[in-house]
Amino acid sequence: MTLFGEVRRASSLLAVSSLSERRAALASISRLLDEEKALIKEENDKDLENAEKEGISSSILHRLVFSDEKLRSVKKGYQDLCGLNDPIGKIREKRELDPEFVLEKKTFPIGVIGMIFEARPDALLQIAGLSLLSGNGLILKGGKEASNTNKILVDIIKRATSSFSFGSSWILGIESREDVQVLLKAEKYVDLLIPRGSNKFVRYCMDNTRIPVMGHSDGICHTFVDKSAVFDKAVKVCVDAKVQYSAACNATETFLVHKEILPSFLPLLEKAFVENNVKIHADAQSMKYLETAIPMVSGDEKNEYLDKECNIIAVEDVKEAVEHINAYGSHHTDAILTESKENASYFVSFVDSADVFVNCSTRFADGYRFGLGAEVGISTSKLHARGPVGLDGLMTTKWILKGQGETVGEYSGADGKEFHHRELI
Amino acid sequence: MTLFGEVRRASSLLAVSSLSERRAALASISRLLDEEKALIKEENDKDLENAEKEGISSSILHRLVFSDEKLRSVKKGYQDLCGLNDPIGKIREKRELDPEFVLEKKTFPIGVIGMIFEARPDALLQIAGLSLLSGNGLILKGGKEASNTNKILVDIIKRATSSFSFGSSWILGIESREDVQVLLKAEKYVDLLIPRGSNKFVRYCMDNTRIPVMGHSDGICHTFVDKSAVFDKAVKVCVDAKVQYSAACNATETFLVHKEILPSFLPLLEKAFVENNVKIHADAQSMKYLETAIPMVSGDEKNEYLDKECNIIAVEDVKEAVEHINAYGSHHTDAILTESKENASYFVSFVDSADVFVNCSTRFADGYRFGLGAEVGISTSKLHARGPVGLDGLMTTKWILKGQGETVGEYSGADGKEFHHRELI
Repeated sequence: MTLFGEVRRASSLLAVSSLSERRAALASISRLLDEEKALIKEENDKDLENAEKEGISSSILHRLVFSDEKLRSVKKGYQDLCGLNDPIGKIREKRELDPEFVLEKKTFPIGVIGMIFEARPDALLQIAGLSLLSGNGLILKGGKEASNTNKILVDIIKRATSSFSFGSSWILGIESREDVQVLLKAEKYVDLLIPRGSNKFVRYCMDNTRIPVMGHSDGICHTFVDKSAVFDKAVKVCVDAKVQYSAACNATETFLVHKEILPSFLPLLEKAFVENNVKIHADAQSMKYLETAIPMVSGDEKNEYLDKECNIIAVEDVKEAVEHINAYGSHHTDAILTESKENASYFVSFVDSADVFVNCSTRFADGYRFGLGAEVGISTSKLHARGPVGLDGLMTTKWILKGQGETVGEYSGADGKEFHHRELI
Repeated sequence: MTLFGEVRRASSLLAVSSLSERRAALASISRLLDEEKALIKEENDKDLENAEKEGISSSILHRLVFSDEKLRSVKKGYQDLCGLNDPIGKIREKRELDPEFVLEKKTFPIGVIGMIFEARPDALLQIAGLSLLSGNGLILKGGKEASNTNKILVDIIKRATSSFSFGSSWILGIESREDVQVLLKAEKYVDLLIPRGSNKFVRYCMDNTRIPVMGHSDGICHTFVDKSAVFDKAVKVCVDAKVQYSAACNATETFLVHKEILPSFLPLLEKAFVENNVKIHADAQSMKYLETAIPMVSGDEKNEYLDKECNIIAVEDVKEAVEHINAYGSHHTDAILTESKENASYFVSFVDSADVFVNCSTRFADGYRFGLGAEVGISTSKLHARGPVGLDGLMTTKWILKGQGETVGEYSGADGKEFHHRELI
């Protein structure tokens, strides 16, 4: 555990470092990534070779390759982060309890983040950037397919930050499966765990640790096409929500369609889906208006296809749509397509999800698109952070009370002083 | 589970009710509590009789009695709550992703709170008030010693709110130990669990549920007396921190004293402690300057005495004080008494606790004293809510994105549109 203890120690120094120092550290990482491009490529090539030998799918290979374009995008992300206000030391509340007796609620880094993620070298760099700027120590376990690349990247980050006040121990890369077990048990050293990956893996982490876990296991998202939807816009949005990147957690799995527009809308939607090779599972009512669909079977409502495959289900009205979403969804991202302000408002009020969208694609649920700079993941928990998690979600607060020797005794009993609780912000 | 399901359903109506309706409901409860005073007294007397028969301690009896003064204080609390801004629908972030494509992060009630608490009828009413005003459904399990009083109070709350749009099912009282087991397993119906009581019980809840738990198990608080502390103020604050209510979680258990002031300060502190019947455990260095103390034994550093008993430990400087606190404390509330701004600032930066105080008593860690209106408890978690938890801690957020048929495809690739991310607040 000594290595974990060092991360804890360094993180407490990082937490009190100045914004200008943290920005300089990000710039230093950017520079060293450029200088060591050849070295990174060498290590990345090893991973790619191994992956090809093992016959890994082209979609994973695509994630694994650390191209110049990905490096540019990471560096652009660091620049964006440096343009944001300091997340540390924001005063969320400030109140005088009595003259010269002032309470502040101030943001502070959470401490040490444990992050387990897929084989994406650019994600490693994004997460490291978010951690550094938010003042949090980081213990990282990346996908094993990227192990050579991960190792050199963590090494570069350490070298680039070693001369700063917090040193290089704020970040630690771990590798083996056994290390993950150690991480899950490290509640003394790790304040927050963010596992990404398969539903099964995330659920496993949640069930096997005392460390608070942030993230989501399922991404069962819905798009409800209301009867007042404008059809051509609706078709365009539905196709985007399913097809633009169907393996993403924010892709729509189930389309709910108002029963009155089944005959008119479904043929248009089906045509577009067929053109995009989308396989349709449909309920009995919808089947009547679809030519290529196969009948839904029990359990399909909760399927996360993660592929060009979806459900189409007829609903009575917005109320039934909301009931379906709250019963079968994963509280991630759900959208309504409608021209009715009333139905949009009902949907927004009653859908119990992190992201509730009106007239746009569920695929917009993403930290970068939301303007958060970047994200460490998307949370479906209602506590702490909900939806895409950027810098804000990596902060906690401290209550700081400064007095002149005040005692509770003086403020107690019939003759006690009274608090005047004057808001200062 | 049907009853729990009804709470869930009613809570979704409560969540969208207007502030004026929720305020009117609180006023209605206040009125009915007055009207039914005789009935409440009758039931409370039954509990008191039973308690006396069972030889329950006077401190528990004191908590159990529902006096006119407690009723007045509850009603005053409801008035204070009604004076606060609506916690629902606050816009935390608002950003245009592009023209007519607007993202909002809005506060929303968490849903259903499961609360397990001690035999204090006034606490039941406070918690119900906080839940109602924050739009959250509530499942309550109060201490069994207060079961008759609890029953009549929940009944009165139900009657007082039955004619409102959300009906009376938003609150549910449960009673038996078996019910607690059901509650712990009810992750489908309960979004947040707040257990209060013994460390052991809170820890048991945390280990036996998938529902997020808010609260604290231990309250091992420290007061560090720095060498520059003004002695008479310091003695006064130390006595208050230990004696004013020694069974509270925010009472100080360990006093850390700068080694240079041991000979001058400890005799003054000991005199005051002896006058207040405080038993002292001391480390070897401090023992030299104390007459009544007994030597500390291993483990005392982590003792939560909850009584007129404390540790006194000598430390090298503020740095060692912070190290001790972070190693042995429970991240609840810790104070420094000093005239050195530099040491105060070091202490505030490096003590990793929910509440960090300068020159005042740790006993101020409390929602009412902090000006939060009331509290459901004090959280030592770094996630979601930290320290005393009032209305804010009972809220989550939703990301609401309203567009005109936008797709992610349009914003992708080399020719894609760019987000302009203009902040609207």
